[in-house]
Amino acid sequence: MATLAMLSLPGREVVLRRAVADDVPAVVALLAADQLGAGRDGIRSEDDHRAYLAAFGLVDADPAQLLVVATEGEDVVATLQLTFLPGLARRGALRAQLEAVRVRSDHRGTGLGSALVEWAVEEAGRRGCALVQLTSDKTRGGAHQFYERLGFVASHEGLKLTLPR
Amino acid sequence: MATLAMLSLPGREVVLRRAVADDVPAVVALLAADQLGAGRDGIRSEDDHRAYLAAFGLVDADPAQLLVVATEGEDVVATLQLTFLPGLARRGALRAQLEAVRVRSDHRGTGLGSALVEWAVEEAGRRGCALVQLTSDKTRGGAHQFYERLGFVASHEGLKLTLPR
Repeated sequence: MATLAMLSLPGREVVLRRAVADDVPAVVALLAADQLGAGRDGIRSEDDHRAYLAAFGLVDADPAQLLVVATEGEDVVATLQLTFLPGLARRGALRAQLEAVRVRSDHRGTGLGSALVEWAVEEAGRRGCALVQLTSDKTRGGAHQFYERLGFVASHEGLKLTLPR
Repeated sequence: MATLAMLSLPGREVVLRRAVADDVPAVVALLAADQLGAGRDGIRSEDDHRAYLAAFGLVDADPAQLLVVATEGEDVVATLQLTFLPGLARRGALRAQLEAVRVRSDHRGTGLGSALVEWAVEEAGRRGCALVQLTSDKTRGGAHQFYERLGFVASHEGLKLTLPR
């Protein structure tokens, strides 16, 4: 499996790599363990599993997407999705977007989340992006401060519209 | 050129279509006419033109991107970029993202912007998206209210980090 990086966390061996289909249950477990994801995500049936695998197939086939898992030993301890967005604005700047950043609850406050996001910002730079962007639910206490410590500026409103399925 | 839709605006003939390379100067003019884009965008040299054309090439080649122009007669009067983002969150939901929504200043307040964004939301639904999302600079007075009237909820902080070029 393609290693992207080792995170420099003292005394630990955390490997970043591109997610594979076998990681889907572990990634969904991280999404479902989240306060906001609890009602939205989880694999409770074969149908659920198929839906997530189909979505993984779309992500994996799209060269603009990079779904990353952080592993320690056999465990998937964190994940994020990086998307590279071309556009005309800002003199044709490429943007990187972070979605679905999740760190397993027993690994929070250990520097793992910061190291993961810092890696993503560096990767965006290596790919020639001019901007990294993300949105964070306003009910997530502490998340904005976490990103602001990493250099992000909360300059925008993030607006969402849910469509009927 | 591929017409996507006619906007239903009484007494007007506004056509939406996929942007082509020849539209790039008009789209950049809309970006540059914007209060925030004024310092960031504009074609002042052949180098500028080449940079925008290269970015247009990336957008146009990516099946997840749809750069739209609204035309009235010969004029490009509005633009937006729709991106379709696969992901695992929300049971593998496809998201649509709006970027670079711009309406020519003399066409604001005419219902054109609303009709354009409503079309984009409908298009997202037709493509099976579960969510439409965008961010709007907090200094843009009135923009959030505009989107809230169209059903968007300002539930998120939009965080950005500018990378050195």
